[in-house]
Amino acid sequence: MESAIGIDFGGTTIKSGLVRGGAIVARGPVIDTQTCGGPDQIIDALVGVVEALSSGSPVAVGVGLPGTVDAEAGMVNELTNVAGWRSIPLRALLEKRTGLVATVENDANAMAYGEWRYGAAQNGRYVVCVTLGTGVGGGLILDGRLYRGAQMGAGEIGHMSIDHRGVRGHYGNLGALEKYVGNHQIAERAQALYAQAGHTRSIEECAPAQLSANAASGDTVALGLWETVGEEIGSALCSVIWLLNPDTIVIGGGVARAGALLFDPIQRTIQQQTGFVFHDRLRVVAATLGNDAGIIGNASLALEAAARARKS
Amino acid sequence: MESAIGIDFGGTTIKSGLVRGGAIVARGPVIDTQTCGGPDQIIDALVGVVEALSSGSPVAVGVGLPGTVDAEAGMVNELTNVAGWRSIPLRALLEKRTGLVATVENDANAMAYGEWRYGAAQNGRYVVCVTLGTGVGGGLILDGRLYRGAQMGAGEIGHMSIDHRGVRGHYGNLGALEKYVGNHQIAERAQALYAQAGHTRSIEECAPAQLSANAASGDTVALGLWETVGEEIGSALCSVIWLLNPDTIVIGGGVARAGALLFDPIQRTIQQQTGFVFHDRLRVVAATLGNDAGIIGNASLALEAAARARKS
Repeated sequence: MESAIGIDFGGTTIKSGLVRGGAIVARGPVIDTQTCGGPDQIIDALVGVVEALSSGSPVAVGVGLPGTVDAEAGMVNELTNVAGWRSIPLRALLEKRTGLVATVENDANAMAYGEWRYGAAQNGRYVVCVTLGTGVGGGLILDGRLYRGAQMGAGEIGHMSIDHRGVRGHYGNLGALEKYVGNHQIAERAQALYAQAGHTRSIEECAPAQLSANAASGDTVALGLWETVGEEIGSALCSVIWLLNPDTIVIGGGVARAGALLFDPIQRTIQQQTGFVFHDRLRVVAATLGNDAGIIGNASLALEAAARARKS
Repeated sequence: MESAIGIDFGGTTIKSGLVRGGAIVARGPVIDTQTCGGPDQIIDALVGVVEALSSGSPVAVGVGLPGTVDAEAGMVNELTNVAGWRSIPLRALLEKRTGLVATVENDANAMAYGEWRYGAAQNGRYVVCVTLGTGVGGGLILDGRLYRGAQMGAGEIGHMSIDHRGVRGHYGNLGALEKYVGNHQIAERAQALYAQAGHTRSIEECAPAQLSANAASGDTVALGLWETVGEEIGSALCSVIWLLNPDTIVIGGGVARAGALLFDPIQRTIQQQTGFVFHDRLRVVAATLGNDAGIIGNASLALEAAARARKS
């Protein structure tokens, strides 16, 4: 069975692995993105990762990056939170220096692809992947293909509005979902709710993981907030369902570790606010690949590009 | 050039035409849907339409219907506002009785297809079509193909939420767009606003066409309401844009006749509430085929099915 290298290029670290049959069989060195320097040094580091994993005889390397990536042209147009990356032909550079077939992809798309090919959405054909963390990201598999949109920007579920007169998002977008259910927003809302109830809590004591623990021991503030957050995420997902009629929704990311506290109100909202045809056979499931979804997704995209290259 | 018959099966009338090169070259008799009787009589009437237009030597017939249509299986699963239609294999029935290649499609999908192939969205590859009328309907062309979703239900923009705690829609969906900007809702809101301003107006005097005329002569109530309606539609479209990154949005239907009164606030909302990459090259345009979009779209789908049938 062929293997490929998947590289998950994040705002803080670059993680990688040699992937065979959808499983990571070896891991590359973890690289600190911010101390690495500019694009030239980072590209050197990526080539180093490929060399470190080359004993597994990979045929391809796929890199996922946090920003605007033109996967068809192989270009990184701009990265979020990583300076100096503008219009860099990363695919061509990597192919030249490593001799492998290379792919570049938006990180959320690559994660969605990983969950679809080897994770929670394996039997889906119309798949919506949502990642709940500091922000809310997403990726779409539509009619059995990764969907990118006209400028490769699709899947920004966190910027969708749940209230046309609501809180202002990063792009002036009123009611942006992630301004309600992002990591920090959940903590701030919890802190305010505890204060209302007469309890002083530090922001650290209001982090989502702590709120899950509190809810598990019957804390009504935490229980109520998870209900609210679930209904808000559920509302945005209902809009996605009406628009795209998916068969599978995968929910991952740190905030999703709340489990049933979050999934129950999401499921209930979907049952109550979409038509029977839309929710009867819809699966709403937790992501299963965790932090490895990006590595596995990028390796899968690269393997398939290598197969196409041989055919043509 | 080959021709095909397009049939637009609506809740009140059935309209049809012989279509060649994207233009209607002859029209069939208009049939009253409600007085026609059950499915058997309506199917007889559809066959009659095909016979009436057969002098144009059509090679195929396409029917668009208001409801749940399984275009791949050729089945009409259920119609909205037309009794007795449940699990009817309309494609096979029509092919047997007419000898032509037949297609069946959801009406909003067929209209979107018409606008894409021959109307306002001809150069688009990622197209969102919205129809503003009694309800708000929609159809999607994604990556150059009609997108239907897992149960062929996709495109229900009118059921998307603009307020997660808002007005209840037909399916319990809070904040459903069409409960704000449907024909009747606009009239009711105008009536209430006029009353607040000390003016008594009948509901007929508050119909969208009248409101456009009022706004044109400087009526501040009408002007303000079109702003609000445009911002609400714009908010829903911003969510669609963040999710799908389209290159073209086509807006049609009776309410869209308000023109710039409606399009200006929609455009402004999109400019102000989406990222530059998402709106810089996005075209937001008025539908150009009007009531003929369905006839032309269905005929186009049927012609393409005939071409595929010959190839295979």
